[in-house]
Amino acid sequence: MISATVTGHVWSTRRIDGLPAGALLEVEVDGTSGSRLIAFDVLGSGLGERVLIAQGSVAANWFVGTPPPVDALIIGSIDPDVSG
Amino acid sequence: MISATVTGHVWSTRRIDGLPAGALLEVEVDGTSGSRLIAFDVLGSGLGERVLIAQGSVAANWFVGTPPPVDALIIGSIDPDVSG
Amino acid sequence: MISATVTGHVWSTRRIDGLPAGALLEVEVDGTSGSRLIAFDVLGSGLGERVLIAQGSVAANWFVGTPPPVDALIIGSIDPDVSG
Amino acid sequence: MISATVTGHVWSTRRIDGLPAGALLEVEVDGTSGSRLIAFDVLGSGLGERVLIAQGSVAANWFVGTPPPVDALIIGSIDPDVSG
Amino acid sequence: MISATVTGHVWSTRRIDGLPAGALLEVEVDGTSGSRLIAFDVLGSGLGERVLIAQGSVAANWFVGTPPPVDALIIGSIDPDVSG
Repeated sequence: MISATVTGHVWSTRRIDGLPAGALLEVEVDGTSGSRLIAFDVLGSGLGERVLIAQGSVAANWFVGTPPPVDALIIGSIDPDVSG
Repeated sequence: MISATVTGHVWSTRRIDGLPAGALLEVEVDGTSGSRLIAFDVLGSGLGERVLIAQGSVAANWFVGTPPPVDALIIGSIDPDVSG
Repeated sequence: MISATVTGHVWSTRRIDGLPAGALLEVEVDGTSGSRLIAFDVLGSGLGERVLIAQGSVAANWFVGTPPPVDALIIGSIDPDVSG
Repeated sequence: MISATVTGHVWSTRRIDGLPAGALLEVEVDGTSGSRLIAFDVLGSGLGERVLIAQGSVAANWFVGTPPPVDALIIGSIDPDVSG
Repeated sequence: MISATVTGHVWSTRRIDGLPAGALLEVEVDGTSGSRLIAFDVLGSGLGERVLIAQGSVAANWFVGTPPPVDALIIGSIDPDVSG
């Protein structure tokens, strides 16, 4: 998994079928020179929050029913005071 | 997922069986020094449009029936005024 | 697989359902300029230990039952005296 | 997917079972500083030809029967005159 | 797939269940500035040998029975005199 910081919200009104309801958050990956990706969020993560992200088909397979076309999922919020 | 900008169209007349009808668009990945990839598009995305892309087997598994050999799918257009 | 060194522990109290009990360890990937990731650990690996990590859906599929949203799993400790 | 240029042929007489008959072509990935990979080819692509490559399990799953240990497949030849 | 050169052997006495018998070889990926990974080997590849590696779930799915937590498999030895 990777740790990252939430940097914004992405809105995509025109989208394909099969994307579940939920937030699309832009995150900056920790330990990189600003590398960003967009992760699906079901936890209500906030701006500036440090989060844990799983990538690949494991992200899609977390959803119940037909796996959606999602390849990055926020799986947890990182507790601020004890990491690393 | 990644966000990218559509930079062109790719035509591949000589291709293997199993590639569905649809557009192959070249995109430039946001936040990189010009890194490009080619994504399958079913939304009719235009040149210069900012799009959201899912990669890996989740892209292939979105299609109905036998998953095609597609590892990058445009899953939405990014609304211009509200992202990050 | 990749080899890495355990650099810390990550706590995530607020997390999605489906993450099994076990440790989330931050590791620094060998041979990189400090590239880090977070791997699930069931071996009780310690700080500074060199470990072997499998990534992607193979990590999730190791678990019994429904594969959890885990894309990096410590699959072994690297014996200190004989590696490469 | 990625676009690349065929730079050579790779022969592997001593190989594991399950690799289908067909060509293993070395390609140089477009837009990189010479990054290379080896892709399986069923189209008879030639030296210097620009090709479209799908990577990961979608490549293996294209084959009929048991998916072979192939993680990169040439899925088409890129028409020279119309790409982006 | 990628081509690489075998640079050493990795021993992991303390490991999780499900890792098959066989060698864990450290390899240096061709065309990179020393990027290394560890691949599972069933061919008895030797030090300095150039090998072909498949990565991801296709590596795990090559094994008979329950796919092991292996994400890199040596699928062949590259014939020295004819490559690229």
